[in-house]
Amino acid sequence: MSTNYADDSLMLHTDLYQINMAETYWADGVHERRAVFDLYFRKLPFGNGYAVFAGLERVLEYLKGFRFSESDLAYLRDNAGYKDDFLSYLADLRFTGDVYSMVEGELVFGNEPIIRVEAPLIQAQLIETALLNIVNYQTLIATKASRIKQVVKNDVVMEFGSRRAQEMDAAIWGARAAVIGGVEATSNVRAGKLFGIPVAGTHAHSMVQAYESEYDAFHAYARRHKDCVFLVDTYDTLKIGVPTAIRVAKELGDKINFIGIRLDSGDIAYLSKESRRMLDEAGFKDAKIIVSNDLDEYTIMNLQLQGAKVDQWGIGTKLITAYDQPALGAVYKLVAIENEEGVLEDRIKISSTAEKVTTPGLKKVYRIIDRENGKAEGDYITMWDEKPEEESRLKMFHPVHTFISKFVTNFEAVNLHQEVVREGHIVYDLPELPQITEFAHGQLNLLWDEYKRSLNPEEYPVDLSQKCWDNKMRNIHEVQDRIHEFETDGAEN
Amino acid sequence: MSTNYADDSLMLHTDLYQINMAETYWADGVHERRAVFDLYFRKLPFGNGYAVFAGLERVLEYLKGFRFSESDLAYLRDNAGYKDDFLSYLADLRFTGDVYSMVEGELVFGNEPIIRVEAPLIQAQLIETALLNIVNYQTLIATKASRIKQVVKNDVVMEFGSRRAQEMDAAIWGARAAVIGGVEATSNVRAGKLFGIPVAGTHAHSMVQAYESEYDAFHAYARRHKDCVFLVDTYDTLKIGVPTAIRVAKELGDKINFIGIRLDSGDIAYLSKESRRMLDEAGFKDAKIIVSNDLDEYTIMNLQLQGAKVDQWGIGTKLITAYDQPALGAVYKLVAIENEEGVLEDRIKISSTAEKVTTPGLKKVYRIIDRENGKAEGDYITMWDEKPEEESRLKMFHPVHTFISKFVTNFEAVNLHQEVVREGHIVYDLPELPQITEFAHGQLNLLWDEYKRSLNPEEYPVDLSQKCWDNKMRNIHEVQDRIHEFETDGAEN
Repeated sequence: MSTNYADDSLMLHTDLYQINMAETYWADGVHERRAVFDLYFRKLPFGNGYAVFAGLERVLEYLKGFRFSESDLAYLRDNAGYKDDFLSYLADLRFTGDVYSMVEGELVFGNEPIIRVEAPLIQAQLIETALLNIVNYQTLIATKASRIKQVVKNDVVMEFGSRRAQEMDAAIWGARAAVIGGVEATSNVRAGKLFGIPVAGTHAHSMVQAYESEYDAFHAYARRHKDCVFLVDTYDTLKIGVPTAIRVAKELGDKINFIGIRLDSGDIAYLSKESRRMLDEAGFKDAKIIVSNDLDEYTIMNLQLQGAKVDQWGIGTKLITAYDQPALGAVYKLVAIENEEGVLEDRIKISSTAEKVTTPGLKKVYRIIDRENGKAEGDYITMWDEKPEEESRLKMFHPVHTFISKFVTNFEAVNLHQEVVREGHIVYDLPELPQITEFAHGQLNLLWDEYKRSLNPEEYPVDLSQKCWDNKMRNIHEVQDRIHEFETDGAEN
Repeated sequence: MSTNYADDSLMLHTDLYQINMAETYWADGVHERRAVFDLYFRKLPFGNGYAVFAGLERVLEYLKGFRFSESDLAYLRDNAGYKDDFLSYLADLRFTGDVYSMVEGELVFGNEPIIRVEAPLIQAQLIETALLNIVNYQTLIATKASRIKQVVKNDVVMEFGSRRAQEMDAAIWGARAAVIGGVEATSNVRAGKLFGIPVAGTHAHSMVQAYESEYDAFHAYARRHKDCVFLVDTYDTLKIGVPTAIRVAKELGDKINFIGIRLDSGDIAYLSKESRRMLDEAGFKDAKIIVSNDLDEYTIMNLQLQGAKVDQWGIGTKLITAYDQPALGAVYKLVAIENEEGVLEDRIKISSTAEKVTTPGLKKVYRIIDRENGKAEGDYITMWDEKPEEESRLKMFHPVHTFISKFVTNFEAVNLHQEVVREGHIVYDLPELPQITEFAHGQLNLLWDEYKRSLNPEEYPVDLSQKCWDNKMRNIHEVQDRIHEFETDGAEN
């Protein structure tokens, strides 16, 4: 049981092979060579035109706690066969590297480093699994929430998915990520407490059932709660539920703040329109209609098309699990490593699929913003020593279809990476959640609408600088030469 | 940040409306009325013929910790507007109810109570969200793992999904659930430590890249590790990877235990067959081929049909997120509650969809096993005071299509519910994980193959006793009468 260990840490929250590799590096004496890893995903989720980065707060919390506990080391010795010499080394190991990262709420696209880790090889290797576990999920949910928010526009959206979340961490960190993506509130009270998110919710069917009738139940609720939203579909929405809500609201008048009703089943388009009519006729023109029944951005778009009368949307399963694509495929790739002489050498991973070939070297990511209209022209990946902010004209070309290119002038080049950890110390002030949400919202204004469409958006350009491209080609050719050499040698054996 | 509260508990890991309802019950003086809730799902996931229950261990851990912390109460007072009178009551609240549950590893089907909670209304209400959050995810993953195990049969299956899991709890509890479903090992070391699961893994592409060549990397690994699996697809599987693995294995001979190779990209059918041929020709007929590339039960079936030569399967994203159906829809419904006189009254939730009408009353679930062939004839839901184990002949009929029925004789009726919590105290000895896995495996032997097919299995019967059915009908008619009465009264206003 997880409570067996009072000193359980997250250091073993990693794949076994990371520890095996760590041991190999250590035994071989290469463990302290400086290594550079890029964390990025290749393909945007849900066919969306952008993603919303989330996860940095927990990543930093994790790095701060980078320290094997007694029970971690005992487990590695007694159950996984590691020897004391290596374990003594691990006992004293702390994270001493540098981390550059986009900030939470930043819009991010395929094949650009979200996080760059520069650290002794052994440390950079050990943190891979946890970083991906955190960033993959939180970024996925922030992006899903943003898609939903694009569709509902100014209506309120609430996250209601805890009971269907993939275990407890997903419920709370998913709620936080959803807020970064534009959701206004969560039903999860713990997420409210831990992250300062507004919490929402009134009552369930079980309360109506616990009383003899909806009338008794609504009255009981109203005796203790000023703000009342009545759930009206326990027995029959239009025949009993809405009329009872109206009756109780009339009887209690100013004694309560009758916010409105919630619909949780049946045909939302039909029921919301009929409920609206009944509320209006009863004089409750300001009463809100809140719905919550297996919704996502597609169902919402359809309900809108059918003229559903909805003021607030409660989204459960489809948001908290990212139901239509429950995993983001971010990866963490070695792009450079110190050689024996202490010089950083590029590293590349080759694949027969063009998109899977990594981009080697220490790099930076810029967002190129047109000074005239304030819109983003694309993102621009450079080698570490380039300074696009000092140039007057940039050539941007497609990283796979290189014959597609354009020149950009009168631009601002914004470096998207912040230094967040320096020599193991956090040097970044984590903003409060409302600031992150506001930042994310502002970033969306940089994008043309063509990139924000839910279905078939245009592809936002993420381009390599000429130098970065040339460097990548040189690395590819070197590997190809090596393969050729190996084959020739092999034939001679 | 979550570490802001040293005394963070899981009591607020609930939906806000649960606390609002709790306050309503308390203010109204009905909070201590004994209530009965059933936890069950309606529809089996993945179109599978059965589900494997998991989650009880964490549910019991949660109930043991049922106690609002200082910071929980402070949050409710300062940020959610609850008043001191109610908070004083919450401060002293402990779980004092009874819980009956299936055990982990039990096979479970739609519409049968997995867990039955009998507790003071306020307590039973507060725990709903956490129980569903835990059981929905863990049962989903145990079931997905069991589907995969059905397909690979005696091959080894390993859970490799931590980096794509939906946050950290999902990674570890998902690994545990996967083991209950039949997976042999996990890559997540923390899951290994916490739950005693065998851990597996050797090295990644980054280790190969960290060295000048695969040859150097494999040698470095082998210097420290006796058991060697070499990952062979970093540059070119058949041209470099497999030949290098063979060369290193030959050079080192008995100094290492050359377990085999791992393939992580490309066409597994083709590459595994070619690799097998190369290994065999080199005299390594016992070397294993381990694969791990976006696999699930469907891909595995196809690879098997194409004669892929695979010994061990590493399953990541598709298992740990239950990719093709990332949520189980278990619900928690009030089925009975004490009235003013202390007598338990049935409660029902009506719906226009037949499957969504709840089955009221205090009930038990039996598995009916044919004594001759040892196979399960179906599950049989009775009222609490029925004793099918004492009967010689049972009439079982379909709970929706009631004209389909059969008589069963010479059977054993096994009560699937264990008493796990009595008056708030855990009275069930949690078995060790290997026992749970063995139990789950044994339970599968009770099922005919027709229920275990991955695609379009037969529907396993889950039937109501005549008494249970009559009781449900009586409750439906009572509600219908009440609706009719309300409409008539309404028309007179």
